Amino acid sequence: MDRVEIKEKKIVGIDLGGTTFKVGVIDFSGKLLYKSDTNTPVELGDKAVLNRIIEKVDEAIEKLKIDKKEILGIGMGAPGILDIENGINIFSPNLKWNNVNMVAPIKEHFNVPVFIENDVRVAALGEKRFGSGKGRRYMIFIALGTGIGSGIIINGELFRGSIGGGGEIGHMVIDSNGPRCNCGNYGCFEALAGGPAIVARAEKAIKNGYKTEILELANNNISNITPALIYQAAKNGDKVALEIFRETSFYLGLGFVTLTNIFNPECIIVGGGISRSWDILMPPVIQMVKTRGFPRSRDVVEILPSSLGEDAGVIGAGVLVIERIEKEEKI
Amino acid sequence: MDRVEIKEKKIVGIDLGGTTFKVGVIDFSGKLLYKSDTNTPVELGDKAVLNRIIEKVDEAIEKLKIDKKEILGIGMGAPGILDIENGINIFSPNLKWNNVNMVAPIKEHFNVPVFIENDVRVAALGEKRFGSGKGRRYMIFIALGTGIGSGIIINGELFRGSIGGGGEIGHMVIDSNGPRCNCGNYGCFEALAGGPAIVARAEKAIKNGYKTEILELANNNISNITPALIYQAAKNGDKVALEIFRETSFYLGLGFVTLTNIFNPECIIVGGGISRSWDILMPPVIQMVKTRGFPRSRDVVEILPSSLGEDAGVIGAGVLVIERIEKEEKI
Repeated sequence: MDRVEIKEKKIVGIDLGGTTFKVGVIDFSGKLLYKSDTNTPVELGDKAVLNRIIEKVDEAIEKLKIDKKEILGIGMGAPGILDIENGINIFSPNLKWNNVNMVAPIKEHFNVPVFIENDVRVAALGEKRFGSGKGRRYMIFIALGTGIGSGIIINGELFRGSIGGGGEIGHMVIDSNGPRCNCGNYGCFEALAGGPAIVARAEKAIKNGYKTEILELANNNISNITPALIYQAAKNGDKVALEIFRETSFYLGLGFVTLTNIFNPECIIVGGGISRSWDILMPPVIQMVKTRGFPRSRDVVEILPSSLGEDAGVIGAGVLVIERIEKEEKI
Repeated sequence: MDRVEIKEKKIVGIDLGGTTFKVGVIDFSGKLLYKSDTNTPVELGDKAVLNRIIEKVDEAIEKLKIDKKEILGIGMGAPGILDIENGINIFSPNLKWNNVNMVAPIKEHFNVPVFIENDVRVAALGEKRFGSGKGRRYMIFIALGTGIGSGIIINGELFRGSIGGGGEIGHMVIDSNGPRCNCGNYGCFEALAGGPAIVARAEKAIKNGYKTEILELANNNISNITPALIYQAAKNGDKVALEIFRETSFYLGLGFVTLTNIFNPECIIVGGGISRSWDILMPPVIQMVKTRGFPRSRDVVEILPSSLGEDAGVIGAGVLVIERIEKEEKI
């Protein structure tokens, strides 16, 4: 295929999560031509999940009224530990998968190249090529949610580490006396700045008798509290909620300082559900990086919100295909 | 030049420090054919320092009885912030240099390619090619001294960051309530595990009235205390000294866990003066990484002493030349 011919083709991106999966179709300019969102039938097992994905890709092709031959390749972002060379999801608690070949069934059905990569890394690729990180060669994409994950771009390339375990920034130690993390370690970044840590601060305040609007917003049921509710209370000026964000921003800032000093990135792009609290959460983080970061590195780093948002995953999964094809065909 | 011709040449490596500088000559197998160690005449200014270096390189060539034409290139590791493309040392407190062209005078005299790089990164290159990291593509070289510096190798290449500021691991935040660091931040890795932090623990213990052999070894003068003396006391079974090492190993371990989780390296190689306390300092660090590190990454990482030791700098400076020439000439 020549360069022009390739550039007219379409790319399928799949963003697979434990709750829903998204199917998108993009062109070489990163334009999202089509997107669907479907429940992931985890309870029916891996074969059912992969079949549902195939159906939804077929549906996308049908609805777009394009020929299957127009599809250049399929990229898929997924949670878990992946063997990307062999297309295997080695272990994913979210999908309840163990050693599942995610590539073979899809490749067989569509007869195009299929590539997989960790979901957060895929989102990072999307932001790098078509989002807030456009044109940057050194960037970190951070997904703030229940966990804190990252996709790190070094010299324009995705950084994976020696066996694909690189970028576990949620498990940097930022507090020598910190609380226990799900990983078994203590004082991890995500144990102090992830969603459950934010909720735990609200629960503690309520149990200690502090008056806060958070409880009302949660219909007086402490187990209904979410970071989004705490944000809502903070927006309403609730002092407890504001203090919870102040504390969270502090720990988040420590992690951002460490990342700035180690990676000297051009930008840190922040996505994930918690990043929707940007106006309250992030200004103190940016301030901390600019004052406590290492000279020069702190000056160059820009801290930006994700511009692709919810679509970073499907677009990034498409970029996975584009960049592999570019490398191989040198287009 | 053909491949064989190049491989028969010699390379000059210079390890420039604020106290002394070393000149070495190596061959393509990394063999150190010659080495000299000279006081750095910092007080005489940059021109005098560079002239002294030129004299010592001339002396090396003379003593080895080789022709100047046999020298393929000169590599130099130096402290400070470097503009490696233009050969400028932008700022080095150790050398008292501001915007000094380190390359031009040397290049003019010898008429061969001259390359510069940060001193710790150069040592990392040496360990990667000819030392403990031989054959590794993902490794971190850590220099434990007054400060804690690193040279990080990613996919076989030196990692520099967007403007050369990458790898400042001494300034990872590992303690949210930690002491102030020289950089202005709080709780930095080197403020808790660097040489001065170790000495400060001894001073504090003595001021608090603890009986320890450290003071005797320092001739009853608290300002004579060094990490080496504390190590000597610990070797003699001194309980205060052992407790100082236990605390230092704890903080060192937190930093090593963070690096393991973020970089997923094949190995972490430890050099620098403080690493001479290996038998007491490092076993608890290794134990912490193996138990508190993230699964898989903690299993693959090997923590090893530098095998080039004092020579990592001069050999690595030579490797800087070898790798540049290899890239350009594709040998």
